[in-house]
Amino acid sequence: MSEKQQLLSLLRQVEHGACTPEQALLQMKLQPFQDLGYAKVDHHRAVRQGVSEVIYGKSKTPEQILGIVTAMAENGCTNILVTQMSQEAAELVRKTIPLDYHPIPRLGIAVPMEQKRTGNIVVAAAGTSDLYCAEEAALTAEALGSRVVRLYDVGVSGLHRTLSHLEELMQARVVVAVAGMEGALASVLGGLVDCPVLAVPTSVGYGASFGGVSALLSMLNSCASGVSVVNIDNGFGAGYQAHLINQMETAKE
Amino acid sequence: MSEKQQLLSLLRQVEHGACTPEQALLQMKLQPFQDLGYAKVDHHRAVRQGVSEVIYGKSKTPEQILGIVTAMAENGCTNILVTQMSQEAAELVRKTIPLDYHPIPRLGIAVPMEQKRTGNIVVAAAGTSDLYCAEEAALTAEALGSRVVRLYDVGVSGLHRTLSHLEELMQARVVVAVAGMEGALASVLGGLVDCPVLAVPTSVGYGASFGGVSALLSMLNSCASGVSVVNIDNGFGAGYQAHLINQMETAKE
Amino acid sequence: MSEKQQLLSLLRQVEHGACTPEQALLQMKLQPFQDLGYAKVDHHRAVRQGVSEVIYGKSKTPEQILGIVTAMAENGCTNILVTQMSQEAAELVRKTIPLDYHPIPRLGIAVPMEQKRTGNIVVAAAGTSDLYCAEEAALTAEALGSRVVRLYDVGVSGLHRTLSHLEELMQARVVVAVAGMEGALASVLGGLVDCPVLAVPTSVGYGASFGGVSALLSMLNSCASGVSVVNIDNGFGAGYQAHLINQMETAKE
Amino acid sequence: MSEKQQLLSLLRQVEHGACTPEQALLQMKLQPFQDLGYAKVDHHRAVRQGVSEVIYGKSKTPEQILGIVTAMAENGCTNILVTQMSQEAAELVRKTIPLDYHPIPRLGIAVPMEQKRTGNIVVAAAGTSDLYCAEEAALTAEALGSRVVRLYDVGVSGLHRTLSHLEELMQARVVVAVAGMEGALASVLGGLVDCPVLAVPTSVGYGASFGGVSALLSMLNSCASGVSVVNIDNGFGAGYQAHLINQMETAKE
Amino acid sequence: MSEKQQLLSLLRQVEHGACTPEQALLQMKLQPFQDLGYAKVDHHRAVRQGVSEVIYGKSKTPEQILGIVTAMAENGCTNILVTQMSQEAAELVRKTIPLDYHPIPRLGIAVPMEQKRTGNIVVAAAGTSDLYCAEEAALTAEALGSRVVRLYDVGVSGLHRTLSHLEELMQARVVVAVAGMEGALASVLGGLVDCPVLAVPTSVGYGASFGGVSALLSMLNSCASGVSVVNIDNGFGAGYQAHLINQMETAKE
Amino acid sequence: MSEKQQLLSLLRQVEHGACTPEQALLQMKLQPFQDLGYAKVDHHRAVRQGVSEVIYGKSKTPEQILGIVTAMAENGCTNILVTQMSQEAAELVRKTIPLDYHPIPRLGIAVPMEQKRTGNIVVAAAGTSDLYCAEEAALTAEALGSRVVRLYDVGVSGLHRTLSHLEELMQARVVVAVAGMEGALASVLGGLVDCPVLAVPTSVGYGASFGGVSALLSMLNSCASGVSVVNIDNGFGAGYQAHLINQMETAKE
Amino acid sequence: MSEKQQLLSLLRQVEHGACTPEQALLQMKLQPFQDLGYAKVDHHRAVRQGVSEVIYGKSKTPEQILGIVTAMAENGCTNILVTQMSQEAAELVRKTIPLDYHPIPRLGIAVPMEQKRTGNIVVAAAGTSDLYCAEEAALTAEALGSRVVRLYDVGVSGLHRTLSHLEELMQARVVVAVAGMEGALASVLGGLVDCPVLAVPTSVGYGASFGGVSALLSMLNSCASGVSVVNIDNGFGAGYQAHLINQMETAKE
Amino acid sequence: MSEKQQLLSLLRQVEHGACTPEQALLQMKLQPFQDLGYAKVDHHRAVRQGVSEVIYGKSKTPEQILGIVTAMAENGCTNILVTQMSQEAAELVRKTIPLDYHPIPRLGIAVPMEQKRTGNIVVAAAGTSDLYCAEEAALTAEALGSRVVRLYDVGVSGLHRTLSHLEELMQARVVVAVAGMEGALASVLGGLVDCPVLAVPTSVGYGASFGGVSALLSMLNSCASGVSVVNIDNGFGAGYQAHLINQMETAKE
Repeated sequence: MSEKQQLLSLLRQVEHGACTPEQALLQMKLQPFQDLGYAKVDHHRAVRQGVSEVIYGKSKTPEQILGIVTAMAENGCTNILVTQMSQEAAELVRKTIPLDYHPIPRLGIAVPMEQKRTGNIVVAAAGTSDLYCAEEAALTAEALGSRVVRLYDVGVSGLHRTLSHLEELMQARVVVAVAGMEGALASVLGGLVDCPVLAVPTSVGYGASFGGVSALLSMLNSCASGVSVVNIDNGFGAGYQAHLINQMETAKE
Repeated sequence: MSEKQQLLSLLRQVEHGACTPEQALLQMKLQPFQDLGYAKVDHHRAVRQGVSEVIYGKSKTPEQILGIVTAMAENGCTNILVTQMSQEAAELVRKTIPLDYHPIPRLGIAVPMEQKRTGNIVVAAAGTSDLYCAEEAALTAEALGSRVVRLYDVGVSGLHRTLSHLEELMQARVVVAVAGMEGALASVLGGLVDCPVLAVPTSVGYGASFGGVSALLSMLNSCASGVSVVNIDNGFGAGYQAHLINQMETAKE
Repeated sequence: MSEKQQLLSLLRQVEHGACTPEQALLQMKLQPFQDLGYAKVDHHRAVRQGVSEVIYGKSKTPEQILGIVTAMAENGCTNILVTQMSQEAAELVRKTIPLDYHPIPRLGIAVPMEQKRTGNIVVAAAGTSDLYCAEEAALTAEALGSRVVRLYDVGVSGLHRTLSHLEELMQARVVVAVAGMEGALASVLGGLVDCPVLAVPTSVGYGASFGGVSALLSMLNSCASGVSVVNIDNGFGAGYQAHLINQMETAKE
Repeated sequence: MSEKQQLLSLLRQVEHGACTPEQALLQMKLQPFQDLGYAKVDHHRAVRQGVSEVIYGKSKTPEQILGIVTAMAENGCTNILVTQMSQEAAELVRKTIPLDYHPIPRLGIAVPMEQKRTGNIVVAAAGTSDLYCAEEAALTAEALGSRVVRLYDVGVSGLHRTLSHLEELMQARVVVAVAGMEGALASVLGGLVDCPVLAVPTSVGYGASFGGVSALLSMLNSCASGVSVVNIDNGFGAGYQAHLINQMETAKE
Repeated sequence: MSEKQQLLSLLRQVEHGACTPEQALLQMKLQPFQDLGYAKVDHHRAVRQGVSEVIYGKSKTPEQILGIVTAMAENGCTNILVTQMSQEAAELVRKTIPLDYHPIPRLGIAVPMEQKRTGNIVVAAAGTSDLYCAEEAALTAEALGSRVVRLYDVGVSGLHRTLSHLEELMQARVVVAVAGMEGALASVLGGLVDCPVLAVPTSVGYGASFGGVSALLSMLNSCASGVSVVNIDNGFGAGYQAHLINQMETAKE
Repeated sequence: MSEKQQLLSLLRQVEHGACTPEQALLQMKLQPFQDLGYAKVDHHRAVRQGVSEVIYGKSKTPEQILGIVTAMAENGCTNILVTQMSQEAAELVRKTIPLDYHPIPRLGIAVPMEQKRTGNIVVAAAGTSDLYCAEEAALTAEALGSRVVRLYDVGVSGLHRTLSHLEELMQARVVVAVAGMEGALASVLGGLVDCPVLAVPTSVGYGASFGGVSALLSMLNSCASGVSVVNIDNGFGAGYQAHLINQMETAKE
Repeated sequence: MSEKQQLLSLLRQVEHGACTPEQALLQMKLQPFQDLGYAKVDHHRAVRQGVSEVIYGKSKTPEQILGIVTAMAENGCTNILVTQMSQEAAELVRKTIPLDYHPIPRLGIAVPMEQKRTGNIVVAAAGTSDLYCAEEAALTAEALGSRVVRLYDVGVSGLHRTLSHLEELMQARVVVAVAGMEGALASVLGGLVDCPVLAVPTSVGYGASFGGVSALLSMLNSCASGVSVVNIDNGFGAGYQAHLINQMETAKE
Repeated sequence: MSEKQQLLSLLRQVEHGACTPEQALLQMKLQPFQDLGYAKVDHHRAVRQGVSEVIYGKSKTPEQILGIVTAMAENGCTNILVTQMSQEAAELVRKTIPLDYHPIPRLGIAVPMEQKRTGNIVVAAAGTSDLYCAEEAALTAEALGSRVVRLYDVGVSGLHRTLSHLEELMQARVVVAVAGMEGALASVLGGLVDCPVLAVPTSVGYGASFGGVSALLSMLNSCASGVSVVNIDNGFGAGYQAHLINQMETAKE
């Protein structure tokens, strides 16, 4: 149910005297989230956006993360993603909540639930060094319910490695291209496939890679059509959007 | 038919003696495009990627553009997009080829054909100044066959304008968010909708907008999930990818 | 009347059957602005924010500017500010609407009205070259109803010039410090006065001034407390905020 | 008493023979501060600017901080702010001087004194991660005598959270908007309220947030009028200026 | 007579009743410059700093330049430097004031007077393209009274050209090193001579020279001791400081 | 004959009394170039470096270029390269000196001489827009005596175009890879060939291509070994170095 | 044997029935590398590019490095380069595979084999601090089979040091110029020698050296012809390309 | 004795048969420095440039520093400066060589010798945090033989502190202005004094100070004439050049 529909429904209750204007105003203000003091937890988001709220773990204490996860779990959320989660936070959460923790992408999935994975996302990474980010994308998409094929170490300086996976690439509904250094993978894949390509620059490299800026610029300037880009090292963002695209259904007439 | 399948088919012809290895090699090299000297025109691209090759008009002479358009038209292409097309080039092409020309986004559509538009893309622009870029996105998506809803002048410093279009936004399959200056529109829309948002920074602004860099960085750093970004002023790229997403069909089991 | 109060009032009308939920929803969506196609004109802004909407003239055609000014004038707005207005736009508007036009800051004030100016804003500029921007700030604040004292050519490399105006500076309620090149004026003034200082970097300079970036960084790093900064060349923004501060009244207990 | 008046008074003493020119010159040079060798402590500042000197603790040794605080306390200063104060420095100072120490914003308030807080400053922060900076702003303003309302975790990707606080926002005399990543909060709040908004970019984020540069640029380019900006992570500066604005009184005719 | 001495003298006059405190204050404020409205002309600067005020012509109208030059000439100034002076301004000034105008460095010297040139400044330029800036330095130093030796087209990629001038370089009291592109001249000269080297980066170059930034960084990072740097294209600044150094006298015991 | 040998020879003449030390010093200083005032022409360079001096025409007047070309021609130089030569300069030179002028790369070759071209340099360009730069490289290498194969419009978003030229690429002794936008061509070619690749970023592109910076960074970060880079748009530099490499002979034991 | 020839050979086998099309396709996809899961090891590269694959050790675990080295050693590779190899990785590999490890350049050479070194590469470094990078270049070139002469601490601020090595420089077939700070060494050497110069900027320096950016820009803007540049600190890349150039043979007619 | 004179003298010896050309060449190459392998120590520099070679200690091992210092001491050098010297290196050197070590500026002076200090350099620092750099400048100048007056904590946000030292400033022969953050001190001092000002940006600050870049840009853009700038944190460079200027003698006719 969209926000607009909720608003309309609320207005109808006022019309029929089911609640007063003041109560309606109050409800509009208080309902959509739970205030933990340090954070406002949004329990309606799964309804509103189809996906539970995701917790960005980087600058939160283990206790804050546990608090938010607990609040969500108590509201029935499952497969709750915690990105950039420290080992320490994982160990704290795990004591009271079931948690799958992946140390390389630093990703936690609380209250993990078996689910059917559908569609077909290809996550391609240029080098071994890019795996931390590629895995963040792949695991995110899988946690949300998408099927993922991983193609790793397929950088463009060894084109035959890339081309040996033409078949998998051609069958993808979305491609996530993860690369650092010169970031050329996005352009090469963008020229090969006919589906959307989401490019993720990584901070892999040294010198004039400037922490991923070189790859970011490359990807933004891709001469291939159909390529869009997320922030440096934002594997989560690419996996999330890839899932949104992958799960699309045929448009109604 | 994918490239892989073409290769397999070619190898089969060699196996059956339908062509010699030398002929096969030659065909693999020469077939996919027509060399005009100054450009190689790719007639198979519509087959391979579902969309005719798009002509980036900026640094080509009117004569070169005419040459490429003509070669494509003679091969049966329709709705041929020419981006960043000068008035002068449009006038030259128009003499021999049917052309719809839109001066503000500097976009030409050669051999325009009526087609059914499907799905639902919302193109939202923050300000009047961003229209050149928003129209490039909207017209591109329409030329490729997508239905487009335009929401213009909905910048975040007047939230009530944005919110008054909640209904259209909620029904979108993809949203293209076009904004210069601080580029906050992408984050606000990204938080409202549950479909992919493609953000296009524009070069609108002055001083520390640095020709679109401020908006670009804003969009890359969006705290909303599900947002990806294209190059500054790349309305075409956003419209193209929006169409790819919009035309997606339900995944097969 | 605040937006919240408008919402509450509308809900009350629904409660009492004065309008249906659907009508309320419609009104919430359509009321606050007038859609000219290329722009949405916000007639409630003067009510909501105490100042009429300001028109950023840079990337609008003279016809668009005329259209917006006319719509506002017909709604009773006066002293309508048009920033970055071209000579050409000024001449067009002037044909049908009274207009004061200042060519150096490229500022137009449509439907100018005599008004009492109160308070005390000092606009200080480091050099003769900074006047275009200082005047934009000063005229903006005056158009909104503030009294302005101008101190020009008081750059810090001639401290005695600055110090000769200590009296005016000490009496200011707000100081706007406009400077290009090294932008040190903001720090020196910030150390002298006990009121808020709004710093405006200008694009005046050459070489490593990088179009105002050097002054901008200087001002952001000011070692004086009580200094805040607006965008490069944004005299309007400083004048606007200076007016908001200047017109403040004693806080209620 | 302003500096100019002090000068005039001194000149009068010379005129009447109350002091010789040499004595006057000496007094003009030595009076306003006390030289500790490593620092010159300014005891007149409270008189001159209405606020005691603030100690920037970052690059000072605990002993230097103690020395300066002691010199100020002996001159009768209270509520002495020490920003960026290390735990170690706090422990040293606390041994001899009463001190309130806040570890997250690393802020110390030496010789704290009860005082009446007046006016109304809203400090809004986009995310949990921005609290270190928001608290620096809020505590600074409170130490100076302003009343502060805190609105935390109200980032624009969850607009309903922001909008649920419309009432508090509408009643503010000044708003401090604290945000990292894309920094869009300043624009959204700037469009909602009719009072000055001071924007504080934080260094929260990763990749293309460039340590707060993305948020800084966003805020400088805000399309909302009435927004000015301080340095990245400069919560103190925003709190200080917010207090200056909040304590303003009605201008005399 | 230094400012301090002027102040002391004034205080003495007050002591002896030669002027009232109010008159003294007035004199302190008004004396040092003449206010033309658009500029404050500083007639005491020649006394205070040994050099007449220099007029930065870039963003001043020909009329403003004429006004300032006239005011200075009427006060007896000679060899008045106008930097970045347009041809148009030169022609206007020339009608009423004697003027030497050098079009390549765009430098005017109003009321030129024969003077003895002393000392020995070497101005070295890397390439023919750098002459505009080298001449600005050389003519400035000459107008101030220094003797200048010019060494042009001595860039480091042809070391034998540089080395053929070792004798002139060894005899210099100050060296001004002017170079664009990679700016290596400053380091090479800095390693050869035992006098101060003032480095001037020029905006000569293309691509990654970034309008002089590459040369600027090179010069700032010079591995030779005794090198300092001025702004890109600031030949005037280097010539001015070179003159200050060149005219130094033996320190008193 | 190397510089060292010239020095030794000169010292021998001194030893044998064939010249005095003073004469030797004079000769060491004056011999290697001819001073035209605005430029020092180096007639020994062809001897010293195997190639005549090249004239960078950008910031020289037509008359200066003519002067330098004439001085070189009179010393017997042929195939004198003038890069970044204006049409106007070409027309002036052509009046008295034979000149081949190529307007697109703005390259002049004065006193052109037939010569045998040897070896094998491939100049590959990603798009039609890059030809101005690719031709500068190709013509430079040809003027110096190298054989050049041109492969244009072989950008990586259409890999089949690149791969269709595998044969020419495999036979190259050096490859010059010219590309703007994301500059991925260098990496792809670097991974395919086993000879040195010289990458030339071009300023082709818009938005975040930043005038060639994106391509430059891509190329510097190439994950392919054996790639080095020249300045943005420096086709001449790549052609020159490619020739140096191409003309290498087998090392002596 | 080139890739093209391999392809042709494979096609011939299909033609003659020696393998089916499916088998050929499979072979084309699987043959060139061995998939270790975390990496694809390319055993044909020595054949294809004349040099074994080089392992970039920076972001690989010691175990991954050991795995790749082992796979290569088992395929008969010798002199396997591991760049940016940690002490820890070296110790692990050394347990089972012969390894020469150089701690300052962090370079490992597994399965080292005596080989004849030919040609003549000069590696010149500006300062003692640049040795880590110069040694990476020198050892790389030696491991690949080139003879290397080292000239260290020859920075341009002490020209006589540089010039004392003129003889070695004149005899070089390729020069690698390694320098941080202002990076002028490349230009000075480029002007002295007549062979290709490969410039390597290092991250040595402080302040405005920006981690090597200053040196990088200097080198890209070198006014000497025949200079190309690799990434900051990429001694390996320069050594690799220097070897490719050094081993060149006389071109066939 | 200058290099030119040494060369002339050497040529005379060849003329008179006192040495053979080969011996002369050898001497020209080997004489000026002593090669320690990791460094070339220049014993003639004190003769050539008036100051012993200075050792940049940052990237040298304690053993290397000891080696160089020992070689210099054995050649009779005194007051040998070692900049950026670690505590560890100081302790090693101190065991065998007399050493004054200053830990805050990390400066060592080996073989310290009493000397008469002459002239008058003012080193002014904006804040307590800048002392590390100001002391490096002051101690360097003193070690070279200059008299230094220190003015610390005189930042421009407390102008009365600066102005209280007018007398010392007016008597300076050179001023070194050390400041971080907005770096405005250089402009203010440059406007007050009539001697050369050397500006040293420090890396003091946070956020948009970008490690000293803000101060650097401010200083380069100073509107005061007579200001030149050295690298960020390069107190040594400023102290060195200040000494060169301070020790200048009256020019000969």
